[in-house]
Amino acid sequence: MPSISKRGVEVPLSPFRKLVPIADRVKAEGKHVYHLNIGQPDIETPAAAMAKVKETDLKILAYSAAAGNASYRAKLVEYYARFGAEVTADQVIVTTGASEAIQFLFMACMDHGDEMVVPEPFYANYNGFAHIADINVVPVTCALEDGFSLPDAKAFEAVITPKTKAIFITNPNNPTGCFYPEKALKELAQVVKKYDLYLFVDEVYREFCYDGQDFFSVLRLEEIENNVVVIDSVSKRYSACGARVGAMVTRNEELIEAVVKYAKLRLSPPGLGQILAEGALEMDDSYMNEVKEEYDRRRNVVFERLQKMEGVISYLPGGAFYCFAEFPVENADHFCQWLLEKFEHKGATVMLSPGEGFYATPGLGVNQVRIAYVLNPTDLHAAMDCLEEALKVYPGRIKVGQLAAGTAVI
Amino acid sequence: MPSISKRGVEVPLSPFRKLVPIADRVKAEGKHVYHLNIGQPDIETPAAAMAKVKETDLKILAYSAAAGNASYRAKLVEYYARFGAEVTADQVIVTTGASEAIQFLFMACMDHGDEMVVPEPFYANYNGFAHIADINVVPVTCALEDGFSLPDAKAFEAVITPKTKAIFITNPNNPTGCFYPEKALKELAQVVKKYDLYLFVDEVYREFCYDGQDFFSVLRLEEIENNVVVIDSVSKRYSACGARVGAMVTRNEELIEAVVKYAKLRLSPPGLGQILAEGALEMDDSYMNEVKEEYDRRRNVVFERLQKMEGVISYLPGGAFYCFAEFPVENADHFCQWLLEKFEHKGATVMLSPGEGFYATPGLGVNQVRIAYVLNPTDLHAAMDCLEEALKVYPGRIKVGQLAAGTAVI
Repeated sequence: MPSISKRGVEVPLSPFRKLVPIADRVKAEGKHVYHLNIGQPDIETPAAAMAKVKETDLKILAYSAAAGNASYRAKLVEYYARFGAEVTADQVIVTTGASEAIQFLFMACMDHGDEMVVPEPFYANYNGFAHIADINVVPVTCALEDGFSLPDAKAFEAVITPKTKAIFITNPNNPTGCFYPEKALKELAQVVKKYDLYLFVDEVYREFCYDGQDFFSVLRLEEIENNVVVIDSVSKRYSACGARVGAMVTRNEELIEAVVKYAKLRLSPPGLGQILAEGALEMDDSYMNEVKEEYDRRRNVVFERLQKMEGVISYLPGGAFYCFAEFPVENADHFCQWLLEKFEHKGATVMLSPGEGFYATPGLGVNQVRIAYVLNPTDLHAAMDCLEEALKVYPGRIKVGQLAAGTAVI
Repeated sequence: MPSISKRGVEVPLSPFRKLVPIADRVKAEGKHVYHLNIGQPDIETPAAAMAKVKETDLKILAYSAAAGNASYRAKLVEYYARFGAEVTADQVIVTTGASEAIQFLFMACMDHGDEMVVPEPFYANYNGFAHIADINVVPVTCALEDGFSLPDAKAFEAVITPKTKAIFITNPNNPTGCFYPEKALKELAQVVKKYDLYLFVDEVYREFCYDGQDFFSVLRLEEIENNVVVIDSVSKRYSACGARVGAMVTRNEELIEAVVKYAKLRLSPPGLGQILAEGALEMDDSYMNEVKEEYDRRRNVVFERLQKMEGVISYLPGGAFYCFAEFPVENADHFCQWLLEKFEHKGATVMLSPGEGFYATPGLGVNQVRIAYVLNPTDLHAAMDCLEEALKVYPGRIKVGQLAAGTAVI
């Protein structure tokens, strides 16, 4: 029997995936599980966008252009302009989800052994994509104490080496929900300019910025137009994760040329998903406004409930639909597994993502979790009830006196 | 401005892609171009399958399981059973087109610098996928004189080294249209077994076997169950290239495990495309029978017309919808470009794929072309009229006396 490749054995999996079979098992046994572990919202995909697919008179579902349908790219240009980002259709490449955009960029911008600086905690699958591209992720650590805000220029400069080719950030952030304001991005831009690095920014959560904060796209940054690349996706924006439609945007013509080569190899992005995505861009603001208000409500539920749990340290996240929290436990990985297997409150439990897997630095995040507020407020409250009770009775709870109740920062 | 990676510069493009801008230009100038260069059929996607998408009552287009929807995988199992291939749903992973299946396999089975043996000419994008995976393609040359039939065991053994991890074939073949019978596959299986290699077989054209020949899936080969992997796609079968739904099938549990890790990284295959693909599997045989008959008609048109062209050497292909031909020209690449730019017959010309790009061995295929018979017989005849006239007047035509009229082999 032929063997699996070394890399096939080593490819790093998302940290919470290993809990999935356990969750499946306890669900089969009758326990209800509130899923706050994944970025799969319970919000409906806009009916108007689905209708575009249902109304299509397409007779042949042919390959689209490798860079995506021209009509969709044109509408994306208008969409980005709403955020003050002036780009042309040639500067937009449609991809199979943000995942593919990331893989294209890693390959087109970096060679084997090159380094990319990423603030941690970060979306754990970046590790897998870096593994595929055979590049190294170099972390810059953010602190829960200040709501995981973007580290300053010095922190980035401290880890930049001659092998560093790119900085990769997510704004608003997954997994922390941190919103990066214009000022912080402009400070980062100076580092990018000084070392002439690529700046990849995953902006898939741009629609979800709270407290009246205006989203600032890095496409608006001046003097580093050829360094900036935006990664995009319709998955979260329109609750259309299964459409598998993303994009990358850059003014760097050479990079577009290189990425288009990779795009041509895989022939085309999904055709039906592109029709849906184009339909979504034709809607007025009402869908997105309602969704944003709904997430804002959920955000407040999670924040307020965490605040009241003894020993839990968290903050009010400024964007996306995630928040990170420190729990009064020695090992959050163990706690999350215990939650699924051993705990039950009113016939239910809650599934969270252990924090450690979102860090590249060993030992960090071991007592932290990511909470995705992707359920409606009623379910969220029920999930928080579970969590509150669980933390009271968890055998591995740390009972040291100095733990204060949840601290609001930002 | 940051630079493109070395690999991003070097990634090998499909050989005919460079002709696309020229074709676009002459079309914009008013010339009609018959596209016999691409595997994009003009056949309609089955309306019954499209209807499944239109009738869906899905409210949230969520991520599907990373390995694909359970209901679709179950139907694929029934589909493969029609070809005598007994597999379980766990042995089927749904991918984003065959392209993604190939990439997953290259990574899961081979490490940097490993070798894979491929009969040439082969689908040119395999070079690009091999480049991404950083593995080496080692060709075994097939001959036009015997219709590009599968080389014998000796030919394969001659190029196998300790670095060889896999043999990759396409049956029926793209770009040659050659059909590999059971006997040839069983001979190859002995080589696979002897050296304990992976055997990847791209079976996306399995429905298109002519002259009453029965398709033999390598999933039916005994003694090498853990070596065999089948690559599949709905693109050609249902003329649904834009669905981006493929699959890989293997009984090797370790390989399934490794591939699922890569599948999880990119979250899920396209959701709408999977609904369409599942719908297509619920149809009776009439659609596929009609399509096959139509391709058979086209095959005969191309073969008969090529036969009558002086100096053209070809053969009757046994499967798929391609054929390769040798032209009385010094350089087919130049000829194909000249066809587009300088030639016109009744306001039209024809676009073909130069053969050289389908070979890994330098210097081979320079006077050959691939013809994809993806147009209806009327258009095909018009395209053949163009080709016939063009070959008469092409300035680079070889006028040596020994060139005979098209020779039928097989």
